[in-house]
Amino acid sequence: MVVKSELKLIKSLQQKKCRNEHGLFVVEGKKTVEEVLNSNMEIYKLFTVDSNELETGDVPFYSISNKELSQISSLKNPNGYLGVFHIPKPTDQILSDWILVLDGVQDPGNLGTIIRLCDWFGITDIICSTDTVDCYNPKVLQATMGSITRVNVRYKGLDAFLNSTQLPVYGTFMDGVSVNNTKLPNKGIMIMGNEGKGISDTIAQLCTDRLAIPQFGDITTESLNVASATAILLHEIRK
Amino acid sequence: MVVKSELKLIKSLQQKKCRNEHGLFVVEGKKTVEEVLNSNMEIYKLFTVDSNELETGDVPFYSISNKELSQISSLKNPNGYLGVFHIPKPTDQILSDWILVLDGVQDPGNLGTIIRLCDWFGITDIICSTDTVDCYNPKVLQATMGSITRVNVRYKGLDAFLNSTQLPVYGTFMDGVSVNNTKLPNKGIMIMGNEGKGISDTIAQLCTDRLAIPQFGDITTESLNVASATAILLHEIRK
Repeated sequence: MVVKSELKLIKSLQQKKCRNEHGLFVVEGKKTVEEVLNSNMEIYKLFTVDSNELETGDVPFYSISNKELSQISSLKNPNGYLGVFHIPKPTDQILSDWILVLDGVQDPGNLGTIIRLCDWFGITDIICSTDTVDCYNPKVLQATMGSITRVNVRYKGLDAFLNSTQLPVYGTFMDGVSVNNTKLPNKGIMIMGNEGKGISDTIAQLCTDRLAIPQFGDITTESLNVASATAILLHEIRK
Repeated sequence: MVVKSELKLIKSLQQKKCRNEHGLFVVEGKKTVEEVLNSNMEIYKLFTVDSNELETGDVPFYSISNKELSQISSLKNPNGYLGVFHIPKPTDQILSDWILVLDGVQDPGNLGTIIRLCDWFGITDIICSTDTVDCYNPKVLQATMGSITRVNVRYKGLDAFLNSTQLPVYGTFMDGVSVNNTKLPNKGIMIMGNEGKGISDTIAQLCTDRLAIPQFGDITTESLNVASATAILLHEIRK
């Protein structure tokens, strides 16, 4: 039995404002909940309709009804497990050789896919402009498939950060140099821009190198999706 | 004014069964509707709440109310334009050097992104197993951003097709040879598998070459998303 005020609190965590106010975020689904439980992230409370099957170790859980779960879930079809975790304190420490910078990425599915790509390619540091979609948004977490526990995502003003770095700063532009003709260094910063507008003018001026992913199709083709472009660039970085 | 039976018909096109029965599919949004109108695809009917702005040429349109539009739209927030088009007759003609084969891709967003990638990389032929998600699904079309008009997507039994081809057949597997160490030929077939299960056993046996995309992150990382993997492989094909 869970009190109403608690259900209301958890439902409110679907909104960024409430997540930041309480310092909490929600993860759904057995596999992802277990993955976050096994990471350094700190559990607040764990809810399940099916307490027998979860490998929670010593973590206490609250049994709830399917009806209660559907009240607090962000999913159309909730799948039995919902964990509430503390948002980790952001750290300024950079651990990986390359840093991915996101300038205004808006779509939660894209950010989730990008976090999962960074995890795959061993890039543990992502720095997002403050207008990039929140990484604790339920749809982002759904798309990361647990990778959020292994990649450090931070939000800050990009100009100050880029002005202070000694690393080469790469951005992708329609008129850039083909990435196929570019030897990327061992360390650097790669900037990906907004879905519709690309990299903003202010940030474009801080790029030291302008790259392009060559196109082979009809010239009327829409630009590459930002997550697809990230996949190709991270693959090139690691070659 | 649109009669009720017509609204009902259009709403029913959200289901694959009804699309196939009527040979019709729905496209939403001004930009995508205009793009499909300017392609070889044949319009059935065009509906809009805002008739002044659309560049329809000689295409007649039906004015509808916002309420009627929301009744027939598959979007939470319909955006003013809805076109109903005839599903083109599938052709057996292969036009591009490389053919992308999809073995049971289920997620509409993934298929849409893959169609958009093929368009970008000039790969005009996609062959899908019959259990791959329908390319005229509204969510697929939303993600293709108009690329559906420039890429031929067909559904057929994959074994018969792969057994009859003389082309090399590439598939991606965890234990494959790194794509970084492989020189891809000028022509071939690339197979991408299901999101959870990868390429099915029957189809795996028909692959002549087993590739892998090397990973650099933590070994507990989930596999690459199928659309991200497609982005990397098509980029490698075109290098």
